[in-house]
Amino acid sequence: MEGSHENAEDENQIVTPWEVAAKEGGRIDYDKLIVKFGCQKLDQSIVQRVEKLTGKPAHVFLRRGVFFAHREFDKILDAFEKGENFYLYTGRGPSSEALHLGHLVPFMFTKYLQDAFKVPLVIQLTDDEKCMWKNLTIEESQRLARENAKDIIACGFDISRTFIFSDFDYVGGAFYKNMVRIAKCVTLNQVRAIFGFTGEDHIGKVSFPPVQAAPSFPSSFPHLFGDKNNLRCLIPCAIDQDPYFRMTRDVAPRIGCQKPSLIESLFFPALQGETGKMSASDSTTAIYVTDSAKDIKNKVNKYAFSGGGDTIENHRKFGANLEVDISVKYLSFFLEDDAELENIKQEYGAGRMLTGEVKKLLIEVLTNMVERHRKARAAVTDEMVDVFMSARPLPDMFG
Amino acid sequence: MEGSHENAEDENQIVTPWEVAAKEGGRIDYDKLIVKFGCQKLDQSIVQRVEKLTGKPAHVFLRRGVFFAHREFDKILDAFEKGENFYLYTGRGPSSEALHLGHLVPFMFTKYLQDAFKVPLVIQLTDDEKCMWKNLTIEESQRLARENAKDIIACGFDISRTFIFSDFDYVGGAFYKNMVRIAKCVTLNQVRAIFGFTGEDHIGKVSFPPVQAAPSFPSSFPHLFGDKNNLRCLIPCAIDQDPYFRMTRDVAPRIGCQKPSLIESLFFPALQGETGKMSASDSTTAIYVTDSAKDIKNKVNKYAFSGGGDTIENHRKFGANLEVDISVKYLSFFLEDDAELENIKQEYGAGRMLTGEVKKLLIEVLTNMVERHRKARAAVTDEMVDVFMSARPLPDMFG
Repeated sequence: MEGSHENAEDENQIVTPWEVAAKEGGRIDYDKLIVKFGCQKLDQSIVQRVEKLTGKPAHVFLRRGVFFAHREFDKILDAFEKGENFYLYTGRGPSSEALHLGHLVPFMFTKYLQDAFKVPLVIQLTDDEKCMWKNLTIEESQRLARENAKDIIACGFDISRTFIFSDFDYVGGAFYKNMVRIAKCVTLNQVRAIFGFTGEDHIGKVSFPPVQAAPSFPSSFPHLFGDKNNLRCLIPCAIDQDPYFRMTRDVAPRIGCQKPSLIESLFFPALQGETGKMSASDSTTAIYVTDSAKDIKNKVNKYAFSGGGDTIENHRKFGANLEVDISVKYLSFFLEDDAELENIKQEYGAGRMLTGEVKKLLIEVLTNMVERHRKARAAVTDEMVDVFMSARPLPDMFG
Repeated sequence: MEGSHENAEDENQIVTPWEVAAKEGGRIDYDKLIVKFGCQKLDQSIVQRVEKLTGKPAHVFLRRGVFFAHREFDKILDAFEKGENFYLYTGRGPSSEALHLGHLVPFMFTKYLQDAFKVPLVIQLTDDEKCMWKNLTIEESQRLARENAKDIIACGFDISRTFIFSDFDYVGGAFYKNMVRIAKCVTLNQVRAIFGFTGEDHIGKVSFPPVQAAPSFPSSFPHLFGDKNNLRCLIPCAIDQDPYFRMTRDVAPRIGCQKPSLIESLFFPALQGETGKMSASDSTTAIYVTDSAKDIKNKVNKYAFSGGGDTIENHRKFGANLEVDISVKYLSFFLEDDAELENIKQEYGAGRMLTGEVKKLLIEVLTNMVERHRKARAAVTDEMVDVFMSARPLPDMFG
């Protein structure tokens, strides 16, 4: 099988689709994760190739290494170069009403990919997964899926190239057939090794990996791709989802399908520091798209971990530790101007700029961003959601 | 949990949904099975009650104990007596092109129940199960499902009260939601204990029990039952399917549903003797609905195990052992005239009738029956199959 099929748990960190944590205040070691998972580092030559092929500057997340690892992304680029099409697949488990900034990262990046390559996109809302893992009712999971769809649409996806679906609504027909084809190729021992299921887990959990794997194959979407069953699939996601797609890639050739390619991101860090992902259940660890300007200001000032000196004197003398400073991390995700970011890093790192000044800049950037999102979301009508979520053909999706 | 959740395997017999065998030439001990599974014996008082409630004579299979066990069938009768409706659910795993007589038994009985109680019926064709267990392609499983549907329809089901569905076509929507609800209530340890799955089994097998459980709940069929979510379900089946429905009955109250009731049959014995079920893979063990008159004659004469004496002299002196005689068994399934059957048993048991004479009678009964089935099947058009298998409302199903 491809890569390691163990849980990526060792003495220093645990990374699974349900838990991401560095132990005892350490940070996630992404290089170790690449080795452990068996994926490839996304290097600068690939970034340059993307710019050349799309004729557009690479997204901030690409040129700054937020998307830092991949599996055969180069094959997607090879195919695209030869004039072949591909499609994008990403998703979300709708477990909470409000999204935080970490949730937006893969969608912001996927929107860039859709625009740059002009390709169709399927977005899976795994309401069945959340119903099973979080013990939500089906009705609540579906309500959250629809609410989350509004936030996703607000990221600016092209309605003529995008199909968003809830598992509870869409599983069936060709999609179910692919679930069965996939399930036949994976043993109980294998899913126990990959996902860490135990005998006390319910069988819904064991049944779920094929549901997340199925959208990797174009034949799951006959209304979109018809008989284009050899179309390649590119999956932008955070690296904790890698186990699902390692499994999927192992299965693909056995059911006569192309292996999906992956492009994988770092986790967006919590305000308190880079020990894992933000937590949807602890509202002080994250900035939400529903936070007010005042919330944002308070949270950044109060919780954003500072790498600055413990006294002004020490700060002026030794400068800030940029490696652990959350304001600098957040700015490197969301401040688009490379020169401005570089300048902040230099001035702050040298102690000439104070934490308070950096936080002030960050608050401005986040407030603008959240305000833009809020406006975009308010413009998303129920009718638009209905269209995005209807299993319709997308006639010009490769146009 | 209800009854035993172990595999019904002991030193003398094994009975699971995939294997039925008495060991070393013994016979299936049905009384032991009732105790082991924790179901109830179907006694004569229930048979009389059915006759009274329906105003019709009980089916041969009922009065002769072919359907010999049940789970809360009496509750169905209580409800019916009070004027409440119920629905029937049965099914078939379409693993072979031609059905044998054993396959027809539950359908013949279900047709009787449908006519006697005037209730709707859903018939599940588990093409997904057979695709997974027998490693058939999806296309082949679906082809077999449709071929089998023709044989099922030929049993005479009422098109205005019957919905036949293929899992590959029908799983989705409300049905999938029930699969998830059910799966959440059953642990991996439980399915391993109930069905004997091992770590080397693929996860498709682990995912399947909720598929067979879901039709036990009326909400899986919104086009039939709308919001009648409290409708009771009665499942006629061979007793090897009991593990699925023990599981289903355990789950039912936890998801706010009625427990389905069961009425369970003996296995139809192989020509060679009553050590298990007939085998679809060994054509000499069974009479098929596609067998010619000549096939039937040859098979009965050549293979039907005889309880007659080893010489004519001994036979005349000691009589036949009716307990092991397959011709008598088969006649007790399919010869409707009670007096005639009784007469054969007396004459044969006393040695006045010879095995050859009994076989001649059996050949006549089976040839007529298979010929009737063949004609009925030939009259089943593709359009009829399409109607039976379309997810349509059945407006007068309780009429």
